[in-house]
Amino acid sequence: MLEKCLENVKAKTPLIHNITNYVTVNDVANALLASGGSPIMSDEPDDVSDITSICSGLNINIGTLNKNSIEAMFISGRKSKELGHIVLLDPVGAGASKLRTETALKIMNEIKPDVIRGNISEIKTLASGSGTTKGVDADVADTVTEDNLDLMVDFAKSFSKKTGAVIAITGAIDLVADSNRCYVIRNGNSLMSRITGTGCMLSALAAAYAVANPDNITEAVAASVCLMGLSGEIGVSNMKADEGNSSLRNHIIDAIYNMDGQKLARGAKYEVR
Amino acid sequence: MLEKCLENVKAKTPLIHNITNYVTVNDVANALLASGGSPIMSDEPDDVSDITSICSGLNINIGTLNKNSIEAMFISGRKSKELGHIVLLDPVGAGASKLRTETALKIMNEIKPDVIRGNISEIKTLASGSGTTKGVDADVADTVTEDNLDLMVDFAKSFSKKTGAVIAITGAIDLVADSNRCYVIRNGNSLMSRITGTGCMLSALAAAYAVANPDNITEAVAASVCLMGLSGEIGVSNMKADEGNSSLRNHIIDAIYNMDGQKLARGAKYEVR
Amino acid sequence: MLEKCLENVKAKTPLIHNITNYVTVNDVANALLASGGSPIMSDEPDDVSDITSICSGLNINIGTLNKNSIEAMFISGRKSKELGHIVLLDPVGAGASKLRTETALKIMNEIKPDVIRGNISEIKTLASGSGTTKGVDADVADTVTEDNLDLMVDFAKSFSKKTGAVIAITGAIDLVADSNRCYVIRNGNSLMSRITGTGCMLSALAAAYAVANPDNITEAVAASVCLMGLSGEIGVSNMKADEGNSSLRNHIIDAIYNMDGQKLARGAKYEVR
Repeated sequence: MLEKCLENVKAKTPLIHNITNYVTVNDVANALLASGGSPIMSDEPDDVSDITSICSGLNINIGTLNKNSIEAMFISGRKSKELGHIVLLDPVGAGASKLRTETALKIMNEIKPDVIRGNISEIKTLASGSGTTKGVDADVADTVTEDNLDLMVDFAKSFSKKTGAVIAITGAIDLVADSNRCYVIRNGNSLMSRITGTGCMLSALAAAYAVANPDNITEAVAASVCLMGLSGEIGVSNMKADEGNSSLRNHIIDAIYNMDGQKLARGAKYEVR
Repeated sequence: MLEKCLENVKAKTPLIHNITNYVTVNDVANALLASGGSPIMSDEPDDVSDITSICSGLNINIGTLNKNSIEAMFISGRKSKELGHIVLLDPVGAGASKLRTETALKIMNEIKPDVIRGNISEIKTLASGSGTTKGVDADVADTVTEDNLDLMVDFAKSFSKKTGAVIAITGAIDLVADSNRCYVIRNGNSLMSRITGTGCMLSALAAAYAVANPDNITEAVAASVCLMGLSGEIGVSNMKADEGNSSLRNHIIDAIYNMDGQKLARGAKYEVR
Repeated sequence: MLEKCLENVKAKTPLIHNITNYVTVNDVANALLASGGSPIMSDEPDDVSDITSICSGLNINIGTLNKNSIEAMFISGRKSKELGHIVLLDPVGAGASKLRTETALKIMNEIKPDVIRGNISEIKTLASGSGTTKGVDADVADTVTEDNLDLMVDFAKSFSKKTGAVIAITGAIDLVADSNRCYVIRNGNSLMSRITGTGCMLSALAAAYAVANPDNITEAVAASVCLMGLSGEIGVSNMKADEGNSSLRNHIIDAIYNMDGQKLARGAKYEVR
């Protein structure tokens, strides 16, 4: 039940270590706090092992990666795995640069994250193995639509099977899959793409939801995706005549803050395939 | 026509690579999205060449420069020039430190940006050649006023001629000049100086406007300056009794989001000299 | 008088050099501007000495410290002391990692900041000498309450005496102490902990208040703590039905912006012990 997933976050206040980009980091911190979780940010190699150790989950986002933070990602990733913590990878821009693609692949292969969340282009890049070599899944579509849904659900499940991670592919239709089942989620609003950070915030929330629901990670990630999409819908509906994307950002985080289990259960639009 | 400049941004969605400071980077991203453009941030030397290559313009802002990002600025700058992309330089704090002054001068001389946007103090520093040697233009005034306007217009035009860049000097009165003509712009509101980031946002917008209007860069930059000033006016007029600078930031980005060609054309206050 | 402390900030517009974390840096800049101060951010070792020199105070916040910024903290700290500037240390996360604890202790011992502001856990860590060795003060309580207030006031005074710094310990009850007297402050609202950055903003404000009131630093820091707490109360009272922590952040900065000496004097809740 999605309701229970949300309530567990509010009850347990999971402390999430975020190695994330500096573009949306403030929104990530406030979104985590809004959800009932708690954020710490640290990306210095000499600092991250201790910080990971006092947290209960790790959110790795490569949005503004650099040599120093990449080293930190591996140190924290390994430490998290040693400690049995949940690790989430958000491969921002995988496919857009060699460094991003290679870093994301290396984290995927060496750290073996529990959850991978990205858009279809990023996830395809990881499934293909690299930008230069064409992997088995390289000809899946570039967007998830009602027409290719069966194909994409199969792709998500098989990529989950291959990696052992829960796979979240977000876009107009969102997919959250493990190797057996796939949540097909139809929450959200297209205006969410007019603000920066909805993806980054979602990744942090997904990490918090997975940490607070360790026996039920697939459903927990699906709950976080519904939460973000529903908060986007509420945020858009709260926009006044002269408001734009800056106010929308506030409305979305505010909607996360005001969400409860019942609202989430009522507003979530999903099916399981 | 300013109207057409704005519409071209909305139609073309120019993707701008920003190497910018971490203070205002979120506002820069949301302002670009508000305008109809699209942002990517990357400042790691090993990443930026690929990122520049998928973008159509580069915004270099030295607000929180460091050794790593300075290297990235030069790699991206050279790559952009190779590819025929628009490069904008925002020399934040040139004159305030040796490193900023020298970095800005070196970018100006080696990369030859298409647009340079700063306040009068920063632009004077660049025109003077350095903080320690007094250049030919070093005795222009410290603010642009109605009284010294002719002198300042001449200074902007001659600095444009010398550098080959469109020069935008922003303050109470804004100037946007190439070697032949200068837009004198009287939009804006003094409360804009009570929030951080209006200059940084404007630089990103100016880059997007120049990219979307390649045959008409001077007018495009002038359009972006009018857009920012007019959005500031609208933002201030939308402030409620108990609001302050944090709400003003939201109102300004919202106003950029809601601007259309007609509103901009009607609200722009400028003359060409 | 708190009133005079606020008015001096508005009259003198102290320029504060902030070496601070990238999570809350935008809020720190806007909070400083809201208060009447002015921010500059720079954390590159080759840049900071010049930037410190043009400022009148330094705010060191170790929230996302890295090797480069740590070096910058010491360069700026020493330069500030040479120039007779106010230095404030915010030891974010001291006690949570070896690097944070050691860096904060080293800054405390070598730079000798004029003001140290943290939560009780961070301040205890500094007073204890390190996370591994138990110092004399290590058995003070973990929160400041009405029950242990006398003990905590004594602790704050004696730590001030030992360090020579004004000590600000913030939480449900805030303490601001020098070796002789301690302001016990009961402003604030528990919802302030649901947004990121209230501590970071307060440290920057405390630096600005100390700089603008050099003959009266203890009272100035107390005034900034009252300002932040009262702005939090006003911010919470301005929240509308569907608002959450993102709107609260805006309301708090807006309240700082709209504060004047009379409102502060009327709203401040403190006693001196």
